Amino acid sequence: MKATLLHGPKDIRVGEVPEPALLESTDAIVRVTHACICGSDLWPYRGVGLDGDGPAEPQRIGHEFLGVVEETGSDVTSPRPGDVVVAPFTFSDGSCEFCRDGLPTSCVNGGMWGSGGVDGGQGEAVRVPRAEGTLVRLPGGSDEALSASLLTLSDVFSTGHHAAVSASVKRGSTVVVVGDGAVGLSGVLASARLGAERIVIMGRHTPRTELAERFGATDVVPERGAEGVERVRELTGGHGAPHVLECVGTDDSLATAVGVVRDGGAIGRVGAPTYANIPQSAETFFRNVTISGGVAPARDYIPELLPDVLEGRVQPGLVFDRTVGLDDVADGYRAMHEREALKVLVRP
Amino acid sequence: MKATLLHGPKDIRVGEVPEPALLESTDAIVRVTHACICGSDLWPYRGVGLDGDGPAEPQRIGHEFLGVVEETGSDVTSPRPGDVVVAPFTFSDGSCEFCRDGLPTSCVNGGMWGSGGVDGGQGEAVRVPRAEGTLVRLPGGSDEALSASLLTLSDVFSTGHHAAVSASVKRGSTVVVVGDGAVGLSGVLASARLGAERIVIMGRHTPRTELAERFGATDVVPERGAEGVERVRELTGGHGAPHVLECVGTDDSLATAVGVVRDGGAIGRVGAPTYANIPQSAETFFRNVTISGGVAPARDYIPELLPDVLEGRVQPGLVFDRTVGLDDVADGYRAMHEREALKVLVRP
Repeated sequence: MKATLLHGPKDIRVGEVPEPALLESTDAIVRVTHACICGSDLWPYRGVGLDGDGPAEPQRIGHEFLGVVEETGSDVTSPRPGDVVVAPFTFSDGSCEFCRDGLPTSCVNGGMWGSGGVDGGQGEAVRVPRAEGTLVRLPGGSDEALSASLLTLSDVFSTGHHAAVSASVKRGSTVVVVGDGAVGLSGVLASARLGAERIVIMGRHTPRTELAERFGATDVVPERGAEGVERVRELTGGHGAPHVLECVGTDDSLATAVGVVRDGGAIGRVGAPTYANIPQSAETFFRNVTISGGVAPARDYIPELLPDVLEGRVQPGLVFDRTVGLDDVADGYRAMHEREALKVLVRP
Repeated sequence: MKATLLHGPKDIRVGEVPEPALLESTDAIVRVTHACICGSDLWPYRGVGLDGDGPAEPQRIGHEFLGVVEETGSDVTSPRPGDVVVAPFTFSDGSCEFCRDGLPTSCVNGGMWGSGGVDGGQGEAVRVPRAEGTLVRLPGGSDEALSASLLTLSDVFSTGHHAAVSASVKRGSTVVVVGDGAVGLSGVLASARLGAERIVIMGRHTPRTELAERFGATDVVPERGAEGVERVRELTGGHGAPHVLECVGTDDSLATAVGVVRDGGAIGRVGAPTYANIPQSAETFFRNVTISGGVAPARDYIPELLPDVLEGRVQPGLVFDRTVGLDDVADGYRAMHEREALKVLVRP
């Protein structure tokens, strides 16, 4: 079958790999109908975290997918072959103490797609470990009009939701979202869904901030750095906002988040950190700023978010602005890397 | 009158200063009956944050005191002259948006004792700015048996409480307290008061850990660093504790806190940070560790903590293991600096 393989920096190709087969009694095989490219896939694509010229062996990639169950191991009661399922961006057993506590990303039997002998999501099929704990059955089956939105439950919308939850967003909140990438936009939508009253997005790419407004943003601040902080403070009564979603993951974006958060407020950080340390320890201490968030426990959020997607109350799939076939996945990476596309859907 | 003056590193003396007088209509003059030395007073005592040989002018010091109101400005309705009051370690107006939100440490008209023309607490009397917002009247008047415990509301017990609250300690919680100084011990007591079931204190000074056990600690871990982390993990089912109180404020103590916190848990940090950055940004991110806390909003906590002190249900004053007269304050600093005393009470 065909799957996306990372050969080295900027060298991504579709190649032939063996058809997946059940290895454990808890596995399932899923035929992928929809996958996508994540902002975090661009890090290895750009060579970050790769040794020398790239992986010694071409590496499977992709961690967001929707598909149809083809086969299940003997210990998998649900889902059943033929079921349409969405996979969260980490797999998990659904039964360990962390899964029971709602933190499947820390599952003692869990892991990531695309490494350690586990398939990546950007291919024709995937062997899913811990299938019963990992996969979420989509009750309506496959509804093409909803597919893009259902696919975002895998990562990007769940991650935006995690940012909002971690920043304690609730009905009536004033929120600042740092970053207008697909995660930031999902954070806007998640905040609006939780009832936030005022949502300021910090971003300078007009098509993206327009989508942010469609998702519920009430204000757009294109300025960056100290100027952006000043502008947000003006908009929020001089002291910043109690709830800040950090959706980028760089030193600069974190400093901006600290600059726009109100004393006593919380920063929900979901941008995969490219910074080594959290700066401004004294400032956050004297201002009682809480720094929360991390990798989103998508598997735990999907049951809560799913009804709103199925019933069309939210349309997180609007973050996709391009669709490519599997053979064109390299062009999808290029388009996202060059900021020509916001988020690319892949149809194997 | 006499007051404590910091002349330079390790050079602290009692000297003559002018009697305080009302400067603003919102001021009060308080005759100090009980003051004390804080671990954070040891930083300037050791020369940290001082330029060259010390302050250009001898600097007033001390930020914890109990006393009797002598005189009040025309805009102060309460307290009245003759009232016994406790002062939190920052002053605040009690009416700004931060004070109303329970964060008086961020009061827009607030500040610290001992700088910018404001008296320090280690003296015979203090001019208290924003007296109506700042001071808390002690309904029972002056009860010598309770004085030490009432004095801890000013800072150390309120700070221990803030660590516990910031780490979301509640009934039944498993808690780890990093540090066996007066703040750490107060964190143990505060956690027990909030109903924590298991309280592990990390400390190696037997008289202190014995007091921790009296305050409610169930386990003592004297090991430090990786060995200490390992030991705590063994005691907490292998994964650490969901609630960690960081009561030291160094790089090492913060790393220990990250090491002993369970994935998805919270660190309440109240040790004044001597570290520039919060390290291990990726580890805390992938493990969804929340970093909360900061400078304690003591003024907001005192009304909640006061009844338990007045009725003897908690005895936070047991952290004082030495009392000196004002003339001997230098020896009190020396004793705390040399770890001969845990916390020194000063009787002007």
